[in-house]
Parts: sequence; C-alpha cells; structure tokens
Amino acid sequence: MAVGYTRVNPDKLVAFSTKVLEKMGVPSEDAGITSRLLVDTDFRGIESHGVAHLAPFYIKRMKDGLINPKPDIKTWSDSASTAVMDGDNGLGFVCGYRAMQEAITRARLVGAGFVSVRNSTHYGACSAYSLLAARENMLGFSCTTGGRGAVAPGGSGREIGINAMSIAVPSGNDFPFCLDMSTTIVAHGKIEIAQRLKKNVPAGWQVDPDGFPITNPQEELERRGAMVLLGQTPEMGVYKGFGLNVMIEILSSVLSGSPTIVEIGGQPKSQGKCTHFCGAIKISGFLEMGDFSRGMENMYKVYHGVPKAKGVQRITLTGELEWEIEQDRRKHGIPLDEEVIKSLKDLSREFNVPYDL
Amino acid sequence: MAVGYTRVNPDKLVAFSTKVLEKMGVPSEDAGITSRLLVDTDFRGIESHGVAHLAPFYIKRMKDGLINPKPDIKTWSDSASTAVMDGDNGLGFVCGYRAMQEAITRARLVGAGFVSVRNSTHYGACSAYSLLAARENMLGFSCTTGGRGAVAPGGSGREIGINAMSIAVPSGNDFPFCLDMSTTIVAHGKIEIAQRLKKNVPAGWQVDPDGFPITNPQEELERRGAMVLLGQTPEMGVYKGFGLNVMIEILSSVLSGSPTIVEIGGQPKSQGKCTHFCGAIKISGFLEMGDFSRGMENMYKVYHGVPKAKGVQRITLTGELEWEIEQDRRKHGIPLDEEVIKSLKDLSREFNVPYDL
Repeated sequence: MAVGYTRVNPDKLVAFSTKVLEKMGVPSEDAGITSRLLVDTDFRGIESHGVAHLAPFYIKRMKDGLINPKPDIKTWSDSASTAVMDGDNGLGFVCGYRAMQEAITRARLVGAGFVSVRNSTHYGACSAYSLLAARENMLGFSCTTGGRGAVAPGGSGREIGINAMSIAVPSGNDFPFCLDMSTTIVAHGKIEIAQRLKKNVPAGWQVDPDGFPITNPQEELERRGAMVLLGQTPEMGVYKGFGLNVMIEILSSVLSGSPTIVEIGGQPKSQGKCTHFCGAIKISGFLEMGDFSRGMENMYKVYHGVPKAKGVQRITLTGELEWEIEQDRRKHGIPLDEEVIKSLKDLSREFNVPYDL
Repeated sequence: MAVGYTRVNPDKLVAFSTKVLEKMGVPSEDAGITSRLLVDTDFRGIESHGVAHLAPFYIKRMKDGLINPKPDIKTWSDSASTAVMDGDNGLGFVCGYRAMQEAITRARLVGAGFVSVRNSTHYGACSAYSLLAARENMLGFSCTTGGRGAVAPGGSGREIGINAMSIAVPSGNDFPFCLDMSTTIVAHGKIEIAQRLKKNVPAGWQVDPDGFPITNPQEELERRGAMVLLGQTPEMGVYKGFGLNVMIEILSSVLSGSPTIVEIGGQPKSQGKCTHFCGAIKISGFLEMGDFSRGMENMYKVYHGVPKAKGVQRITLTGELEWEIEQDRRKHGIPLDEEVIKSLKDLSREFNVPYDL
C-alpha cells in the first residue's frame, strides 16, 4: 500500500455517499443503488471508476444540470427477451442497474434478456452490471459508449467514443470470470492516474492528431491527445479494437434509437452523456448450475496449469486479481488516496453530512 | 490480382464440392450446407477458411476417421431461448449451421436464441454463421474454440486454443457490419499464407517457447511457434485478448458440458475437434427494422466522416472491405490459387466428379 492511503469502512462509505446524493435531490433508493455500485467498484480495485468520481463527476454534473436527479425512466418492449429504455438523463448507475434488472427478469422467464439504453449518463465500470447477472447464476454482459476521446484507424484526433464492455460468469465456489475492458489499449483513467502521480505512460497509449505518441500525460491537453484502440497498429490488430468499439455503438446507441456518441459528444452540455446495453443469459437454460460450476473449476485448473514462462509464478485468469483485492478489502476496508478523502470531506462540509468513515 | 489465380464460377464450385462430399458419404443436404458456407467464405475474401480447406482439412479428416460424415446431432433445452447441441463429431459446418438455425428459430419466437455446441469439428470462419442471423434481420454472434496453438500471458508454448468470434449486424441497404476475429493477433491462416509465399511475418505474431519472436514462418515447427494473443504484451492489453479467448472457451465448451479445448487438444485423434456457440437477437424486439437501418446508415456516415490522418483517403468500417470483395466476386467469379485448383482437380480424379468450374 502506497503512503497517503487511508482504509475506510465500506458500509459507512455507502451510507455517506447515499446521504450526499439524497441532499442533491436523488430519491433514496436511487442514491443507495448508485452508492453501492460505486463502492462495489472500489472493492474490486478499479479506483478510477469508484467514489473518486463522486464529487468531480456525478455531484458536479448534477449541479451543472447535466444529470437529472429525478429521471422519469421509461421502458418498452416488442419481445419477451428484449427492451429499450430511455434514461431521461438520470444517473447512469440507476439506468444501468434498472436495465440489468429488466434483463435478469426476462432471462428468468425465457432464458435471456437484453436491454438497450438511450439518454443515460456515465455509469462507472461495466463490470458493476455484468456481475449483477453473475450473482443470479447468469452470464452477464454490459457495455457503454464513453466520452469522445479515441482515434479511429486512419483517423486523426479525439473523435470516437472510449467505449467499454464487460462479461461476467459465475463459477460456484470460485471467483467469477470477469472481463472488464475499454476498447482502447487502456481506459482513460490510467492517463488520469499517471497525471496525478506525474509519471510517464508507454508510447502507444495516446497519440496527438499527427499520430505521434504522447508519453508525458501532462501534455494531453496542449497536444490534444487521443486514446489508441486495442491492437495499436493495423499489423497488430487495431481493426479488432475498432470493430469492438463500433459494435458497442451499435448495441448501445443504434439499437436504442439514439444518435451515436460521436455525434452526441460534439453537442453542447454533452459531457458524461452515454448509451448502454445490458444482457443476461440463464445458465440453467443450458445445463444444471452444479455441472456448470464443476466445468468452470476444471477450466480454471486447466488454464492455471499450462506450462509457465521462465520466472513466472502463476497464470492469472480474467477477474482473478480483482477477486483477491476484493477479499482483502472486505476484511480490511477500502483504501482511498488523499485527494479522494479530501473530496469527500469537502462534500461533508458542503452538504452537512457527517464524515465518519 | 496476383499471377497464378484463376476465377471460377461460384455456383459450379458449390455443386462440385457438394458432389465430392456426397461421395464421402455425407447426406446431400449436409453436403450442400457445407459447400455453400465454404464458398460464402471465399466470397468475402477469407481464402484461408474457404474451399482451400476442402481437401486437406475436411476430406482428409473424414478419411482419417476424425469427422463423422453421418452424425446423429442431438439438441436439448431448458428454456425458450437456449439450447445445447451435441454434434456427434459431424462436419463443423453442419453443426454450426443447425445451431444457428435453432438460435434464429428461438429468436423469432422470444426475441433471442443461443445454442452451445459440443463434440463438433472445425467450422471454418465464424462470420459464416453470424451472417446467417444478420440476413434474418437479427444481430448474429458466433464463436468457436480452435486448435491448441496460442500462448497464454505468462505461459510457454502452444497450449491454449486459437479461439475466434464474429458478430454481424444487418444495415438495410448498406453492407452488414461484420467483425470476424481470432483472439490471437492474426489467425493462423496468415502464417500458412506466409509459408506458401515464403515471406516473413511481423515480430510479435508468433513466439517460441522462450518468448522470442519467430519472423520466418518456415521455422514454426522446429521452434514450436505459438500464436500471440491480441494486445501482444501486458502493457498493450494482452489480458484483453486472453479474456476474450477464455470467454469463448466458457461459451462453447463449459456451457455445452464439454471439456476445454486445452484438454481435448492434448488427446489422440483430436485434430480439428471444436466446440461452438451461436446466438441471434431479433432487432425488431428493440425497434422497427426501418428505424434501425436508418440508424446504421447514419452511424456509418458519422464514422466515415471523422477527420482523417494525412495521406488517408477513407476510413473503412468493420466488414466493409469484405463486402466490396464480395460484390466483385459475385460478378467476376472467385479467384483460386494454383495450389487450391490442383487440390480440387485431385479430388475430381479421386472421386470421379467432373472438374468444370
């Protein structure tokens, strides 16, 4: 643990965040949903998408009129397993949570459920939603368009969304498989962290409009840096990262009857606007959960057991490290850095909510 | 067009392939399905997965007893939208086609359908199946485990599957979006092509058991080359390629109640054994197809219109080049190289099927 971190009590953190959101006019249930999803994300070590964003993203954007604290969320459907949701510019967490619950309900009835969501806002980490389905013994999938900040192959500048996706699969007694990935090489949060720590980033993560790499992340703004898609170059498969990026735009924007994030991102007051897609598929529609769990455990054993490169102690499977972090944090509390603690104390004073974490 | 290619008539090619398969004992309907899917793949320019494989993969493996020409394919289901299929070691094309038809039928009824397939064999390119759903105005998804030939992050040697996936989306009057990707940087077919043309490949595509790159593909066997996963290095996102690789194993193997390809691949007579997963989601379960088509056309316009890097004439969307190749080949025939022509003429003699393409 680096110096400058303080462990806080997760239940108290949820309660604190809930009270602050209530003071902003968010209904209690929605404030609780949002706070639990934020803290769930911190549990898994994805600090870039947890309560660190509460003040600078969600509270600020509500003040700026970019997020509607009391949305009138509407859902309609033309089949047993599918639906479209309009989030009325509500908190992305509330929209994403309700969309995934809708998908889970449909999957319980007919084996699968999918909901495409328009007019929503930033919903944090995709895995917060895919894992909701995994806890119900379903395959969970969720994806979201992100702010305009990536460059298309052959393109120049920050023009397409930093779109992201997650798939989660339960495994009985073991950790859930959980892939949570930006379609860019890294999420933009990794740039933000390097900016705070005044560290350089590897050449290739971000380029300027002429395609030259930006390795000093302090130069991001002046050089108008754009995130590079997974694969990095045509030779190394950047068309795959691009394909996944566009796929997310189709599932989240086109399928919900929304303009693309590429268009939305160019409009005034568009900061944080997002579209999402949530899906759940019931495992017992294929085979009994006990058999599936044994299959997952066997699969883990097989992948863990492949011959290792020299000096490598273990092969880690997707979601395994996050699971280990979660076990530690459930016992010992969630470490928050000084900057985040300060932002929470500021909220405490501003909203007159006692800081007691 | 390189010297050494001959254009052949696609309908005659389907008929020829069908007759050869019939002579191997494949029922007429199955022989026709297989041949049409092979030629569909050649239409899209994926020569590595088309009729080039007829003699060396499918006919040879039937002779070797690795593919069952008359499988007893069984399907069972515990929900309206999901099913498991046992392919009885039949031709992968027949299993994949029947699985996708089953998924489409279920999607027509309840909006979505998914089928996980065990005991199948090599089914060619994933897009052959996802596009079947797209033609029915559905989102199509298909993935397959591949032969053991890739290396896990931290691993050494050819130990995990070269797993691949495709998603296809119809777009009304325009070309279908179609992502067809190996979870390795490139499909192994690109190595085979470089071997035939005696060309080097970029450092990074393949490594030996010590992690050193193999750029001369003739050294693949002696140096026991393994394909590298998308992302290439931990810094550049190889854990995403790995996550997609394992996800395919879960959807295709674990969910169908099958051992993983990592295990199957180590058994005798395992060459070409595969598991698959096919899914279809009805677009009209979300919004009217006309509205969706207009949304897709708009999305294409938006992505095509992003500012271009110096010297770049156009941004090409996923599946666009393959669509253009298909238009050309539907007019002018399918170009086959000398080696493929020779393999077909050999089949003609062996099975007494007239060669008239």
